[in-house]
Amino acid sequence: SAWAAGCPVIVKAHHAHPATSLIVGRAVVESVRACGLPEGAFSLIFGEGRTVGQALVAHPDVKAVGFTGSRAGGRALFDLASQRPEPIPVFAEMSSVNPIFVMPGLGDAKMDEIATGLHGSATLGAGQFCTNPGIVLFPAGEQGERFVESFLSKMRETAAAPMLHEGIRKAYGQGVETLAGREGVDLLLAPEETPGDGRCHATACVLTSDARSFLSDESLLEEVFGPSTLLVSYEDSSELNEVAEALDGQLTASVFGKEENLPSYGPLLDILETRAGRLLFNQFPTGVEVCGAVVHGGPYPATTDGRSTSVGTGAILRFARPVCYQGFPEELLPDELKEDNPMQIERTEA
Amino acid sequence: SAWAAGCPVIVKAHHAHPATSLIVGRAVVESVRACGLPEGAFSLIFGEGRTVGQALVAHPDVKAVGFTGSRAGGRALFDLASQRPEPIPVFAEMSSVNPIFVMPGLGDAKMDEIATGLHGSATLGAGQFCTNPGIVLFPAGEQGERFVESFLSKMRETAAAPMLHEGIRKAYGQGVETLAGREGVDLLLAPEETPGDGRCHATACVLTSDARSFLSDESLLEEVFGPSTLLVSYEDSSELNEVAEALDGQLTASVFGKEENLPSYGPLLDILETRAGRLLFNQFPTGVEVCGAVVHGGPYPATTDGRSTSVGTGAILRFARPVCYQGFPEELLPDELKEDNPMQIERTEA
Repeated sequence: SAWAAGCPVIVKAHHAHPATSLIVGRAVVESVRACGLPEGAFSLIFGEGRTVGQALVAHPDVKAVGFTGSRAGGRALFDLASQRPEPIPVFAEMSSVNPIFVMPGLGDAKMDEIATGLHGSATLGAGQFCTNPGIVLFPAGEQGERFVESFLSKMRETAAAPMLHEGIRKAYGQGVETLAGREGVDLLLAPEETPGDGRCHATACVLTSDARSFLSDESLLEEVFGPSTLLVSYEDSSELNEVAEALDGQLTASVFGKEENLPSYGPLLDILETRAGRLLFNQFPTGVEVCGAVVHGGPYPATTDGRSTSVGTGAILRFARPVCYQGFPEELLPDELKEDNPMQIERTEA
Repeated sequence: SAWAAGCPVIVKAHHAHPATSLIVGRAVVESVRACGLPEGAFSLIFGEGRTVGQALVAHPDVKAVGFTGSRAGGRALFDLASQRPEPIPVFAEMSSVNPIFVMPGLGDAKMDEIATGLHGSATLGAGQFCTNPGIVLFPAGEQGERFVESFLSKMRETAAAPMLHEGIRKAYGQGVETLAGREGVDLLLAPEETPGDGRCHATACVLTSDARSFLSDESLLEEVFGPSTLLVSYEDSSELNEVAEALDGQLTASVFGKEENLPSYGPLLDILETRAGRLLFNQFPTGVEVCGAVVHGGPYPATTDGRSTSVGTGAILRFARPVCYQGFPEELLPDELKEDNPMQIERTEA
């Protein structure tokens, strides 16, 4: 989106993946040449993450920053950028547990179907999607127990898969351990410590809790990056709304239920609209369509700027500063503004 | 624009104008009622500026801030908002000298005409418009001298006019004094110390300098809020471009010249596009049209967010956080998104 706005882009390679970064970087450089863009349109910088990242954010020639990663990392760059003599915007995508709300009365078949879909979504890319559903609210009782059993059996059968690097795999193990140690949380499926196939592999994990415990312990809201899912049972809709209100800002929030009952979910949907950038009905949040209508962003701490999106045409506005021309003769206006519209741009004013 | 985005608005009354603020506030409350908006749509808060302002910016229910005033004040609110546990955007309009560039070879008649227009623009509202032209670049030589004489005689005849409050009048006197004391700056018309008609009145002021002095002293770039104009002579176009490059971010930049020579001003226009939110040709910047195309904003320090505008429909985006709906049945989508478009919204996607 920075390129679409006409900006050159500097990418900081991840120190854990110098070789992969180099391969990707070379491909980009070739594409830049093939497209006839100037050399400076793309740069790839190597080096220790914090030092290089902070130097880039502090550099007066840098006018905007995009980031995906931890909340601590994103916030550090945001703070640095805000304290510059000339502050610049930071678009950091930092954390999201992408809550899923399963309504009561769906029946066993539908609950099985949701468990199957959830398994696919929660383990996609070893759970390393920013839209990975980390918390699932489900109705307490018999149907809920079946749902947990069904999901658990699928998670048990999931093969170990590689995580991005060793640091992330370690953080995953530690995150699960911390969560499992909280009051009111049960560990139903622990990740294997030595899943084989290399030090970066991890297996899936399932934890359960209930809405009361969840509401009394803020730490249960925190993201565990990886194929881990926390299943939270609730007793009634008022408890469910309380949980929704307790949520931090999220990239997505999904509701599974019967279409005809949706009007009665009104309060829940109203709350979720204030908590997430994308609301889904009977769909899983992994996978983000690139289109004009998509919002891939959300209130803090999901992102540092909930007014923007990192996916879709709206993302161009992150890196564009509008300039208006007043009183200029036709032939000296930029092509974008000429009366006869040589660039065929869709205009809101005639 | 916050109302247009559906947000309730809290206004901090200026402590120097409690009675005026109250009259305006009551009128707004009546309008809010007449329009059937909920009571909370508008609030007016009185009290010492800094305490009230900082408490408002720090309050967790406040999600965005608009501000017009000094650079120190705007930056303080921006810093406070950035340091919140949940950072929020601050749209502060802080300072702008709205430079005017007069090209050579315009002839005496045209130069007289510009002097007349400049006088009107520089003294409008006692020079208290955020688009007040504070710095004017003019070609050195005979024609330039006539221009200065012509402008000076008009400024001399200008009656004293009231400033917003005593503090601003004092700051105006001090600002002029500081500027007049800088090397290479001549005070051609000093503001009267006791212009009569009350303690808040001020008279116009004219200072001159040259591009060399201007380029060697950053403090000449600073805004003096009020009916003060600094006329800066230049020798050639390269000097002019240097001055343009030395400029801070501005709300506006204006060029006066012959249409047929405009292509030769290319480098100047290219530079100004990076320095201002609105570029004008043969027009003065005071007065801002409310329309979809206008940009009333500019790079820091003119504003804290050069990607946005405080005037025109674009301003709504300051206070809007987009949410997208995925997979919802037609009847449960917000009216804005329904297929048959009951609100008749212009859409970019069918």
